[in-house]
Amino acid sequence: MPEAGADAGEPTVRLRLDLSYEGTDFSGWARQPGLRTVQGELEKALGRILRLDPPPSLTVAGRTDAGVHARGQVTHVDIPVASLRATEGRRSESAAPMSMAERLSALTRRLAGALPLDVRVNAVTEAPEGFDARFSALSRRYAYRVCDAPGGVDPLRRSEVLWYPRPLDLGRMNAAAARLVGEHDFAAFCKRRDGATTIRELQRLEWAREEDGMLVATVVADAFCHSMVRALVGSLLAVGEGNRPVEWPGTVLANAVRDSGVNVAPALGLCLEEVRYPAPEDLAGRARRTRRVRTLSR
Amino acid sequence: MPEAGADAGEPTVRLRLDLSYEGTDFSGWARQPGLRTVQGELEKALGRILRLDPPPSLTVAGRTDAGVHARGQVTHVDIPVASLRATEGRRSESAAPMSMAERLSALTRRLAGALPLDVRVNAVTEAPEGFDARFSALSRRYAYRVCDAPGGVDPLRRSEVLWYPRPLDLGRMNAAAARLVGEHDFAAFCKRRDGATTIRELQRLEWAREEDGMLVATVVADAFCHSMVRALVGSLLAVGEGNRPVEWPGTVLANAVRDSGVNVAPALGLCLEEVRYPAPEDLAGRARRTRRVRTLSR
Repeated sequence: MPEAGADAGEPTVRLRLDLSYEGTDFSGWARQPGLRTVQGELEKALGRILRLDPPPSLTVAGRTDAGVHARGQVTHVDIPVASLRATEGRRSESAAPMSMAERLSALTRRLAGALPLDVRVNAVTEAPEGFDARFSALSRRYAYRVCDAPGGVDPLRRSEVLWYPRPLDLGRMNAAAARLVGEHDFAAFCKRRDGATTIRELQRLEWAREEDGMLVATVVADAFCHSMVRALVGSLLAVGEGNRPVEWPGTVLANAVRDSGVNVAPALGLCLEEVRYPAPEDLAGRARRTRRVRTLSR
Repeated sequence: MPEAGADAGEPTVRLRLDLSYEGTDFSGWARQPGLRTVQGELEKALGRILRLDPPPSLTVAGRTDAGVHARGQVTHVDIPVASLRATEGRRSESAAPMSMAERLSALTRRLAGALPLDVRVNAVTEAPEGFDARFSALSRRYAYRVCDAPGGVDPLRRSEVLWYPRPLDLGRMNAAAARLVGEHDFAAFCKRRDGATTIRELQRLEWAREEDGMLVATVVADAFCHSMVRALVGSLLAVGEGNRPVEWPGTVLANAVRDSGVNVAPALGLCLEEVRYPAPEDLAGRARRTRRVRTLSR
């Protein structure tokens, strides 16, 4: 599968990279000139290790905004097979060549050394036939973490948990959330972009209070449009503290226009936890169908 | 119970403060002139809120070193009952005076606003008769967290998890740990201080691998001497990666002299998770007995 940047005749391989990052000091995922972004740091490290100039270009499952974290982000990259030889380092001339698996494991270790500590590549694998990190995905799961304890947030988790200094009512938030689940036009909760559909299937939206008192929203959809999770969470927090009736987020949804009464919740509480893909034989078909209905969307 | 700093005749109250902190940017618990310490920040905030000058002096359950974290730290402080009036802020002259519980809840909220975000007071309560944060404690529980994944540590937990870039053998570490449990002279694993006993009862020392692959040691003792947990962990990590035989930490213990072959594990993986106290009627007796056998120890 030849890509821009690889010579047409040169054999390439598609790699899947699973990664985590703390979003605090990044201007989001997407590469932007002059800004520190996750894509920028990762492409730079790959280019340096594999000696590819310009560096290879990554495709991502979830384009997270500035300040948003990820524990289960997935990307793919197409690179010349020959570039992986660079992962072997200095070896004796007579040593047997390393296998693909050995080279990918060496690449993982080299990335651990080359990347800043706020982004980690947990695994590098050869992508199965038809795999596309963005368009093959079946669903994305996000978590949003909030602490409403009067004393504040656990200091060790303060970069990923929002402090809400007023008590939140779990029952009210879940009653409001239940009215949002399903396939809807989420225009009311999305920053509109020309040409992009805002119809999404919200598969799960529910809050739980963990043992230590922290509130966690689990949010699953086939895909999300821009700022959607944070707008949904913002509307539910207003219900949780009693500022809005339980019916309100559902009414906003039904109106299907961006509502200025919805406060988008801060980025720091949001984390992309998991991206799900179909079985290998369905990867290519899923990518074809998604690309058709969702091009221009994120 | 009059204390230094409170006038002899003035009624005082002993408060118990439960707190958490990220140790990274602190020079440990103990107040030191010119250094940023947890005790220093907390006493300063209490003095400001309660208008006590000099600020009141805190007694702590576990004097953690520079860089060590805490989620379940316990302290006590004796203050004039009258100083709690300052927590009421501006209220109308005719308002009924606040109860002790209301004042302590107001103090918790004020501390949340006054303290830096890397230290949080989770609860302020009136200490039961005979309570002493240090000497009444039955046991301290620490956790030490290590990640041996080739890709590195979850970026969101990198301030509390040590990265060990070589695979660790859980079975070997637990076999070695089992030989250390019990009442022993832990001189081999302690920084010696004149006059202090190094006999401790190590009640629990075991490693588990969590779902995400992270290794966590749970370490419980009646008390710990200086650097003891980190020295124990350091000896077990050497066993885990195969550099030392399983019997080695037990042999070091039996020699009962500080062993230069033991590497003290870095502070960042260590966290004080819990301090246990006896039932209220046993608090004073426990404090008396502990003070007798352990004075000068930590």
